[in-house]
Amino acid sequence: MSIKTIIWHKDKIRLIDQTKLPLKLEYVNCRNIKSLYLAIKELKVRGAPALGIASSFGLYLGIMDSNAKTYKDFMIELKRVMKYLGSSRPTAINLFYGMQRLLSVVENNRTESIRTLKKLLLDEAFKIMREDQETCRKIAEFGSSLIKEGDSILTVCNAGALATADYGTALGVIYKSKEQGKHIKVYACETRPLLQGARLTTWELQRQKIDVTLLCDNMSASLMKQNKIDKVIVGADRIANNGDAANKIGTYSLAVLAKYHHIPFYIAAPISTFDFSIASGKQIPIEHRDGKEVTELFFKKRIAAFGTKVYNPAFDVTASGLISAIITEKGILKKPFNNLKKRLV
Amino acid sequence: MSIKTIIWHKDKIRLIDQTKLPLKLEYVNCRNIKSLYLAIKELKVRGAPALGIASSFGLYLGIMDSNAKTYKDFMIELKRVMKYLGSSRPTAINLFYGMQRLLSVVENNRTESIRTLKKLLLDEAFKIMREDQETCRKIAEFGSSLIKEGDSILTVCNAGALATADYGTALGVIYKSKEQGKHIKVYACETRPLLQGARLTTWELQRQKIDVTLLCDNMSASLMKQNKIDKVIVGADRIANNGDAANKIGTYSLAVLAKYHHIPFYIAAPISTFDFSIASGKQIPIEHRDGKEVTELFFKKRIAAFGTKVYNPAFDVTASGLISAIITEKGILKKPFNNLKKRLV
Repeated sequence: MSIKTIIWHKDKIRLIDQTKLPLKLEYVNCRNIKSLYLAIKELKVRGAPALGIASSFGLYLGIMDSNAKTYKDFMIELKRVMKYLGSSRPTAINLFYGMQRLLSVVENNRTESIRTLKKLLLDEAFKIMREDQETCRKIAEFGSSLIKEGDSILTVCNAGALATADYGTALGVIYKSKEQGKHIKVYACETRPLLQGARLTTWELQRQKIDVTLLCDNMSASLMKQNKIDKVIVGADRIANNGDAANKIGTYSLAVLAKYHHIPFYIAAPISTFDFSIASGKQIPIEHRDGKEVTELFFKKRIAAFGTKVYNPAFDVTASGLISAIITEKGILKKPFNNLKKRLV
Repeated sequence: MSIKTIIWHKDKIRLIDQTKLPLKLEYVNCRNIKSLYLAIKELKVRGAPALGIASSFGLYLGIMDSNAKTYKDFMIELKRVMKYLGSSRPTAINLFYGMQRLLSVVENNRTESIRTLKKLLLDEAFKIMREDQETCRKIAEFGSSLIKEGDSILTVCNAGALATADYGTALGVIYKSKEQGKHIKVYACETRPLLQGARLTTWELQRQKIDVTLLCDNMSASLMKQNKIDKVIVGADRIANNGDAANKIGTYSLAVLAKYHHIPFYIAAPISTFDFSIASGKQIPIEHRDGKEVTELFFKKRIAAFGTKVYNPAFDVTASGLISAIITEKGILKKPFNNLKKRLV
């Protein structure tokens, strides 16, 4: 894979500006946490695992110039940055996972100098990125065992290289299957309102010479009815202890439709996506975004009458009963999905 | 209702150019069948009943200047125009229904002069328009009996005044319910790719002071799960003898989701939408449209990678088992929907 979504380079975070795709492959530099916060908010960088990596480097970025002289002062600054970056998007747990790991590093090394702590933080951020690369390949390896020669796979949003360090979760399964010589056909839901499927998934899959067909979200049931979909594979933004999974809005709809048409529905996600502190999906906060994303196409051309009220949640929750299996780096989880913490940690 | 979708005025058809809505309310004049053909093809006029009216006036428009001297020659010209207009969009049966009615008028008056036949044709086109106005009000009356005070209703595409002469089928039910003093909340699916829900339904409902909220098509399941939808009401483009109904792409998806969430799913359509000649939905031709409708937003800004393959059916078929009732001008049809011809004709 030649796509590097996030690069740490000379004291700044370089990100592919995903709002420019598919027309331009352009990197944007974040030299401070405000610009990173905005890049996350505006979806220049998105995808749960990628957010975990970006926020880890972001936390370092936010304290690397700290003048704190004591551990206590350093911690105050660190937590202020964590809170700020954590407020950018509420649903993806990975955003917090990475920063929490960095926080633990500091807590476990409280006798070290501030200078050393800073170095340890950057090391940990790099470690999180490397782990993501390995994790995605393990998920892909496990997941590919579910994929048969000639399968047609439906996916939504982008759970690919662009959503991770460089390989992807749901799309990683497809890349691996292709590496194994299987011929896979992918159907990509465009994913309104921000069209990550249309803009990112078609671009990414075509670069890897994978047969991909784009459809509007409301067309997926029509394909299923014609027996044109063998499997549905998607990513996740947060998975509760009972397997309920929050993911891009429209995922729940696909899960219900898959069940109705007797099509396996898989989630591919690293363990960092699991939130063992919550019992079920009801406790997952759902981000609601600006209605302009729906009424104005990329804030350019208005498509709904003025004054129109809008319902614009960014995510929905798929009850675990609708999920056939969850593919993780530790293997494939099957039902029942109770007490996942015990099985995964 | 103050919206007149189609007007016959001084030897031309005046249509609201629905591609300009919601930003501009603008009429376009069709002075010949080529311009009408294009207006239909480009969805300047759309909606099954409206297409029936437009094609009726269109058939007259196509032969009003005929120099035919004999009945036989006149019929040849008439059928040529019918075939041409009929090729504009294959799914909506109403397009053929109106023209077939005009054809019968000629066949039943073969001893009349060509001049008289022309007059009879125009009279019949006006009659079809008046009937649509009455039919929609009857559908609305029957349908409103299903609607309770405070109901939240989900709809897709536009089955309103803009899809008929001036009142609507699915939205007619909502207008009538409001006239009866009921407080109704409408959720309008935006209806990708051409966004008739976003552009037309929000505009039309807001003009009538009806509480409407817009959502992307992939968000409807999320609302259903939160018990925010009491009923789904949609129109139809063609209904088979067993009740299978073709309608805007995404309708089938909503029907499956409604069933899963135990929400009644209603179709509101005039009898002219029924195709008694076909046994089931399998025989309904589904129009596939240009992929650019999906990859380029109104042909302006590209949103998918170049070379992307696209699946872009304009309609899908909802199996009658998923339909709770069909609201027609002759009353509310309930299950089983077998042999509808006998019950309706």
